[in-house]
This record gives sequence, structure tokens and C-alpha cells, in this order.
Amino acid sequence: MGNHLLKGKKGIIFGALNEQSIAWQVALKCKQEGADIVLSNLPIAIRFSDTKELGKLIGAPVLGADITKVEDIEQLYDLSLKHFKTKKIDFILHSVANSLNIRKKHAYTDLNYDYMFKTLDVSAISFHKILQVAYQKDLLNEWGSVLAMSYIAAQRIFPDYNEMADAKVLLEGIARNFGYHYGVKRNVRINTVSQSPTLTRSGGVIGGFSEFMQYADDMSPLGNAPANDLAGFCVTLFSDYTKYVTMQNIYHDGGFNATGLSGKLIDTVTSTVAKKKKKRNKYTLQSS
Amino acid sequence: MGNHLLKGKKGIIFGALNEQSIAWQVALKCKQEGADIVLSNLPIAIRFSDTKELGKLIGAPVLGADITKVEDIEQLYDLSLKHFKTKKIDFILHSVANSLNIRKKHAYTDLNYDYMFKTLDVSAISFHKILQVAYQKDLLNEWGSVLAMSYIAAQRIFPDYNEMADAKVLLEGIARNFGYHYGVKRNVRINTVSQSPTLTRSGGVIGGFSEFMQYADDMSPLGNAPANDLAGFCVTLFSDYTKYVTMQNIYHDGGFNATGLSGKLIDTVTSTVAKKKKKRNKYTLQSS
Amino acid sequence: MGNHLLKGKKGIIFGALNEQSIAWQVALKCKQEGADIVLSNLPIAIRFSDTKELGKLIGAPVLGADITKVEDIEQLYDLSLKHFKTKKIDFILHSVANSLNIRKKHAYTDLNYDYMFKTLDVSAISFHKILQVAYQKDLLNEWGSVLAMSYIAAQRIFPDYNEMADAKVLLEGIARNFGYHYGVKRNVRINTVSQSPTLTRSGGVIGGFSEFMQYADDMSPLGNAPANDLAGFCVTLFSDYTKYVTMQNIYHDGGFNATGLSGKLIDTVTSTVAKKKKKRNKYTLQSS
Amino acid sequence: MGNHLLKGKKGIIFGALNEQSIAWQVALKCKQEGADIVLSNLPIAIRFSDTKELGKLIGAPVLGADITKVEDIEQLYDLSLKHFKTKKIDFILHSVANSLNIRKKHAYTDLNYDYMFKTLDVSAISFHKILQVAYQKDLLNEWGSVLAMSYIAAQRIFPDYNEMADAKVLLEGIARNFGYHYGVKRNVRINTVSQSPTLTRSGGVIGGFSEFMQYADDMSPLGNAPANDLAGFCVTLFSDYTKYVTMQNIYHDGGFNATGLSGKLIDTVTSTVAKKKKKRNKYTLQSS
Repeated sequence: MGNHLLKGKKGIIFGALNEQSIAWQVALKCKQEGADIVLSNLPIAIRFSDTKELGKLIGAPVLGADITKVEDIEQLYDLSLKHFKTKKIDFILHSVANSLNIRKKHAYTDLNYDYMFKTLDVSAISFHKILQVAYQKDLLNEWGSVLAMSYIAAQRIFPDYNEMADAKVLLEGIARNFGYHYGVKRNVRINTVSQSPTLTRSGGVIGGFSEFMQYADDMSPLGNAPANDLAGFCVTLFSDYTKYVTMQNIYHDGGFNATGLSGKLIDTVTSTVAKKKKKRNKYTLQSS
Repeated sequence: MGNHLLKGKKGIIFGALNEQSIAWQVALKCKQEGADIVLSNLPIAIRFSDTKELGKLIGAPVLGADITKVEDIEQLYDLSLKHFKTKKIDFILHSVANSLNIRKKHAYTDLNYDYMFKTLDVSAISFHKILQVAYQKDLLNEWGSVLAMSYIAAQRIFPDYNEMADAKVLLEGIARNFGYHYGVKRNVRINTVSQSPTLTRSGGVIGGFSEFMQYADDMSPLGNAPANDLAGFCVTLFSDYTKYVTMQNIYHDGGFNATGLSGKLIDTVTSTVAKKKKKRNKYTLQSS
Repeated sequence: MGNHLLKGKKGIIFGALNEQSIAWQVALKCKQEGADIVLSNLPIAIRFSDTKELGKLIGAPVLGADITKVEDIEQLYDLSLKHFKTKKIDFILHSVANSLNIRKKHAYTDLNYDYMFKTLDVSAISFHKILQVAYQKDLLNEWGSVLAMSYIAAQRIFPDYNEMADAKVLLEGIARNFGYHYGVKRNVRINTVSQSPTLTRSGGVIGGFSEFMQYADDMSPLGNAPANDLAGFCVTLFSDYTKYVTMQNIYHDGGFNATGLSGKLIDTVTSTVAKKKKKRNKYTLQSS
Repeated sequence: MGNHLLKGKKGIIFGALNEQSIAWQVALKCKQEGADIVLSNLPIAIRFSDTKELGKLIGAPVLGADITKVEDIEQLYDLSLKHFKTKKIDFILHSVANSLNIRKKHAYTDLNYDYMFKTLDVSAISFHKILQVAYQKDLLNEWGSVLAMSYIAAQRIFPDYNEMADAKVLLEGIARNFGYHYGVKRNVRINTVSQSPTLTRSGGVIGGFSEFMQYADDMSPLGNAPANDLAGFCVTLFSDYTKYVTMQNIYHDGGFNATGLSGKLIDTVTSTVAKKKKKRNKYTLQSS
């Protein structure tokens, strides 16, 4: 039932909507490891989600905040410190993403730019905002730890991931850049975790998601990483065991990122290629 | 006087303001290699820069366009095709960057977010816009080539580069992601070139820039890459010699990116460290 | 018929065995672009391959050398300078690879280590040897250029590529490390090109290679890069147009390296997954 | 005094010579976290080092093995299982490196190739050997974890690191490639940790090492990572908290890897550049 890895630590977790949420699993695990938590979401999201249940389960207040607004973040931090009865906290999780162009079914080659700005603001620049307000308020203890959730689409194209790939690229950049400044100031470390595809509320919006999860599972030597294991990994990154790990994007994906082709996919591809072969003979010619 | 690498090719070049501009050098070299060019800049920038001189020099019309506006880009493409008397063109260079937070002296930990959105729009999302309009108008010939100028701050922190690092990260992501879609549709390739620090009008705004250029020169086995050589490299990427190179960020930096420490910097550091040494003895203790 | 990109330049090309060889195509193209060439291979390989035909075709002597032996390389360089009637040359191509464990059907988990050392020696350390001898003899002109052929298995696992992946990793490391030293000394640049799978004599040994080529073709937005286009790309890297590009591994692969999933592969995977789905329901359960 | 992260786990640790050794610190920490350990080193190294002291301290047998020899590894595993009274173990640490060319003062451009083969064998291929023997003997439990120690010279040149850079490149490649196979077979994960420069017995051989450590410290937002913290990080990677992290190289370096330039180094460079400036005016001219 936990190893007291976060004993005495206090943290704020953004983005726990329901049991499928990555943030939900992380919050549970952090509690299990001894941390005290404040949960925060967009006020309207709190109303239409299960966050309050989670709050009860782990004894955490649920505070509304639109993290695209600096004032909301400031107020949230003030209320959190009041709740914790401390002057500083130890960790923050940012697990928030929303793509309007995906929801409105705009292809990446037909983006609506107002939507795109909103997507970048909610999914990436909000991370800069929660960091900047924390930095200016000196919110985090020495060796505090901040995490945001990313995805490998920041490195390689997955066509259906659309503009969210650009948001994740920006998110990882912000982690790296702010990690320098907060590191120099307070030894605070900032990282992103690049997780296997996970069937969350926002993941579910992406077309063909369950087929895609199967593909990722076949391409990962250890299979897709479950959200519960991800939560454990995040705990280590919040703990004092990883004090010198910063400004990185670490994959928690069962090896997907380093796999160009797997035995399982070879089987799939080979059988399909066999059928296609009669039609094409481009390479046979080339090598003659 | 050129090897006819771009003979018969037509291209649009964004961002040539004065002789120091990267785009200026690229435009000259493209002309030398046989290409016909349209130059484009923000209307107000045209008035206060030397673009028209360049236009005369290489026989290129100078067309105003605010590339954060889709309508401006559409009109620019229409006028360009009229000028070229063709239905398609072959290449585009995006060499446009502007950071309002740097100009207004906001630190990365004290960004103004309206400025940041403007920075991202001008320096990165504008690249998506010129690509999306091109894609929808089917502007580019098969195997056409599109380049944007990046910088290694997209991979590692250079504190004075500030929010421009985030803009470059986003720019590289857009190149990769759009490169997939335009590749599948028309075999168009899209890359970014990550150039040595270059003393352009926008580079000059960054504090301590000449010291920084010296540092980069010392850390690059071949020294900093001059803009004229960069122009030659861009020519190869627009030419038919590089048809299968796409979705990449290629360094044109004399080896800076792969150098963790150079002999020249060791000399600098060693002499400075020698002085500091009397004060600190952290590691001497650790190893005893 | 060429753009005189290598007019007056002299180079040595290792590894042209027959028309399918990458080195063969590069040699042809270099000649077309105005270079004078010396071809070199293992003496026994020369006897059982078509290298001499190529030599006649492009007016190049074919000199035997075992590039795992320093003395052979020394002698080859001496003979080459004699042939060229110069004191220095301009470029070198290393396109040599051989895996004994693959030939002898040893799995990566059952390597014979004598074979592995031979594989590393022939396929990677030989590159260090040709560089070290060149460096010590001061063989290359200022701004000379050296290339070796790599493959993306140096970054991600492709199970059938076996120990050759380790050889390519080492090869890329040597290019980067030697690139520093030769850059500082003579402004010589050293790079690797990571090419699409190509049906050469050594590629053909790998099991299921034609299915694999189809997979790579489906995953590359521009399709697999043909050897002829690769040759053109190598020409640009030997030319004066790329003087500041060094210590890099550049992909010439139609975008494969940056593609996590392509539309074509989605079709393949989706149809296969649909069949498998009845059997597994792991993720359906997880998300309930 | 530990959080029982490795309670009940059994592991073999290679490379603990004296208190400065990374492996020494890791062994201590693993014990503290509840693991049982077998220590192993080259027989001759055991005689001339303090390994036996460590063995007493943590109740671990010290077994001699030359890990370049398959038979030695086989015997070591047999003896270890006997000692543990189990059929399988849970983790392995490889922290072994030795460069003969550095010891014999051969520059990277003047390598002795017999020495180089020995260096690669001891420092990298030995990792394949301990993995291959483990794989074939089915030594590791499901979700077992294997680590090797790397250094950022595998990504960027540090001239004094010499051929050891190539060894680390190969080591990381082996981790990735074997990680696939062992992952598919037994869900065993294999990673490398890329640590800050650490003053160990082998580090000390490198010229100018203490100045270099100061440089790295100045360039790392959190400073160089101490060996004791590294040990804690390794514990998390051996524990069940990181079951889906595999085939990666993770930096434990205080942010060095993501820092292109730090404020502290800017100070050093600026003052030195100021002096040099009178002599050179290359860039002033370029921008006029």
C-alpha cells in the first residue's frame, strides 16, 4: 500500500476528470504514497465530471481554475497554501489537453487558427502560466518537481493526432526552457512524461483510437503502459529519488519509442503485403 | 557563378529585409542558380527596409503580405502566379521571426502572454498558414520544397533566446507534421535548417549577441557558418538533388550541435576555473 | 547530365560491388558531376563482383584493399595519389557492411562474439581506420568531405537487422567524433547518410527483406528513396554547397524517420486488428 | 533509511572498486532499500581494490569474473543463484569501463586498434555478454531490470573522452537492441543512465578532469549530480515503480544535456571574449 515516497509532500494536480484520467490515477497514487493533494480543474469541467468523488476519496479539496488565466492560477495557489497551511508546496502535475480542431473535425491541413490558438493555450501555454505564477510567487520548495504529460507525436507524425502534436512539441519545449530558469533559482526540476496511448476522455475523441491502441501495443515490447503504472512512475519523479533529473522528456511506453518494427507487426504487415504484392512490383524491377 | 541547380524553378522568399538577412542571401543565390523569385514581406517592413533594392538586383517583384493573415497569403499567391505566368511554383523560404517579449525586455519567467501569442503567430504559426494556403490552392509542383529557418535553441536552452526557443520548437514541429501531409499529397518536402547564430536585424536584438557569436564560433569545429554558405545549402535543398529529404531539421552550424566541449572552450574555461578554484572545493571533498 | 558540382574534385569510393550497390550509384553520379574517382574493394570481392566493369565505365582504377588493415589503406592512398597526380584528394565514401552473425543465422540473443568483432571491424571501425590514416597522411584538402552509409536501425530496433544495428550506431559515433578532430585540423567535414532500405547484396541477406521494403515504403510519405536519388544527395554533401554541414546523421528516407504511423499503415493495421479484436479485449476492460 | 523499494529483490552489481565507484554507491543504496546483492569484479581488480570491504558492509559475496568471457559469466550466475537460493534474480548493474588508449595516451586520431577492441569489449560488448548469458539461462524474473552507466559523450564530442565515447555509443545501442528481445521474452527492461561527470577511478584518468567537472557544474542548472543521488535514481529503475520504462538512455545530470549555454558560463565566456575581441573582428566585418 505504498512506500511513503511522498511522505509529507504537498502537491497540486490538474486534469483529473474521471477514473480514466491519467491525473486521477496519479492523484490516487500520490495519496497512497503519503502526499496531500489539491485537485484543480476548469470550473465547468468540475460540474460535469467526477472530480469531487475523487476529492472525497483522497481527502482533497477540488478548486476551480481556468489555467489559461493568470488570475485564476494566482487565486488557486493562494487557496492551496491556505488549505495546506504552508508557505510552499512540493509538486505539480499538468495533465490537461484539448484540441478544438479535432473536436470540430478540422484536418491538420484545414485548421481553424482561432481554434489552434485555443488548443495551444489550453494544452501547452497553460503550462508556462502555472510555472510563471509559481516562479513569481516562489511557490515551490527547493528540489520541488513539476511534470506535464506528453506524447510521442511530439517527435513523429501520427496523422490523427492532428494539431495536438504541435501542442505537445510546445509543451516539451516549455518544460525544458522553464526547467533551466527554475533550476537555477530553486533547484526545481521540470520534466514531461511521454506515455503510451491511454483511453482517456480526450484520447477517445481521436478517430480509430482503439485500433491505434492495438497497434501501439503490438509495437511495444512490454505492451502499452497502463495508467496505474504511469502513476507510480510519476510518484518517483515527484520524490527525492530523482532530484537531478530535469529538463527531459522521458518515455513511459513499454519501449514503443525505440521500436522501428516489432515481431508482432511484422506478422501483420507480412500477411497484408503478401496480398498487395501481386499488384505492385516496383522494387522487384529496381533490383533486377 | 552558379551551377544552374534551380534552372527554371520559381519560388517565393519571405523575410529579406537587408543585406544581413538570411533570406536576402538565399534570394541572391537562388537567382544565381537560375531561379525566378518573388520577394514578400510585411508591407510596413518593406517601407523601412532595403527589400526593393534586392528586388531590382535580382529582377524580383516585392509583394507585401502579413503572413499571419490567411487572406494576405492567398492574395500573394495569386499575384505570384500571375507574375510567374504559371499555375504552380517550386519552392518557398520562410525566414521570419520576431519576439515581442524580447523587444519589450520581458524575461522568460515574466512573459506577457499577448506578446507570446504574437511571437508564436509571426514566427511559427505563420509557417503553417503559408503551407495550408499552398496546400489548399495546390500551389506547389510535385517534389516542390519548403524551408524554414530554425535554431538549436529548439533543442537546448540558451537563456537569452527567451520565448523564441518555444517559437522555433513549434516551427520545427509544424515542418514535420505538415511534411507528412504534403508529402503524401504531392511529394512536397518540408524541412527546417538550424543555422549558426547570424548577425541579422532580429538576431541583433538579443543581449550580448557578439560575445555569444564568439562562443558559438569557438564551440564549432568549422567555426560559425556564414550566411552566404547557408544560402548555398538552401539551394541544394530546393534542388532536385534532395528529393527524398523531408520532415527533418538539419544543422548548418559547423558542427556546433554535436560538440559538447571544444579545445578552444577548454582553454577559456580552464583559465577561468583556475581562478575560481580557491573558492570552491565541493568535488575535492566528495572524492576523498 | 550533371551540373559540374564536383568539377575537378577527386575521391575514393569504397564498396561498389554491382549495379545494386549504393557505392556504384554514387560513383556514377560523382563522375557525371565532374569528379575523378578511385574505386576500392576487398581484393577477393573485386574478383567476384562487377567492380571492374564500373571502373571501365567511369575511367576509374579499381584498387584492392582490406580496410580493416591499416597497411592496406596506407598503400591504397599512396597509389591513389599517384593515379590522381596530386598531393591531396577531396572526398571519400564508405559504403561497406557485412554481418557474419546474420550470414551464419545467429540471433541477436545468440551472437558469436568472434563474428561480432569482425562485423564491427568491417562495418564501423574500418571507417575510423580510413579516417585515421587520411588524417595522419594529411590526405584531404581543406573542406574535404567524408561520408559513410548508415541506417535508422542505429536509432530504433528492427529485429532482423540484428548486430548490424550496433555496427551502425558505432559508425555514426565515429563520424561525429572524428568529425570534430578533422574539422579542427583541416575543416574536413564527416557525416553519415541514413538511407531507406535498399535491395543491395548485403541488404538481401536479411530475412523477409522485400516485405520489409514494402512496409518502409508504406511508412514513408514520399516512399522509399531510390539509390539513384541517394547518389545525387551524396554529391551535394561532397560539393562546396554544404561546407558547414558536419558531424551529423542525415536521413535520406522519404520521411520514414519522422513518421510514427502513416495512412497506408493504418489501413493495413486496422483491417488486421479488426480480425484480432474478437480474441482480445484488454483495453475495453481497462476503460470501463 | 530507505523505503523498502527493493524489498525481497536480488541483484548482481558489477564494477564496485572503491568508495568513489558509482557501483559502490548503488550497492549501498540497494541494500538500504531491502535488496540482497552479489558483487562482482575482475579477479585482479578485487585484489587491488576495496570491494571486499563493501561486501562485508552489506553482507554480499564478492565473486570474481572477467565479463569479457562468457564462461566466467555463466559460472558467476550459477554461483549467484546458489548464494541467493533462488532460480532467478531481479536486477543487474553494469558499471564497468576502461579505455586502454586513454591510459596509454593515444589520441583519438592515433588509436591503437588492438587497444580499441579491448576497450569496446570491456566497456560495451561485455554488456551484451552479461545480457546474452542471462537471456539464455533465463536468469531474470518477469519485469526484471538491467542498467548500464553511460555518459553524454555518446551524443556529443568531448575531446578528452576519446574512444570511450564510441564505447558508450555502442553500450547504449546494445541496451536498446537487447531491450527489445528481453522485453518480448520476459518483460525485462534494459536502460542506460547518463550521469554527470563523476570523479571515479576511471574518470580520474581523463586529463583536466577537475576543470571539466567545474565546467559541467556551471553548465547544469542543478549542478552536477552526486553519486549518492544517482544511486537513488538507479533504485527507482530497479523497482516496480518503473516497469514500463525501457530501451532508453535517461540523463541524471542536473539538466546539463538540455543546456546550450548557462548564465554562469556566459559570465566566464564574456570576460574571456572581451579580451580576445581586440584581436579578431571577423563578425564585425560580416555585419557591416
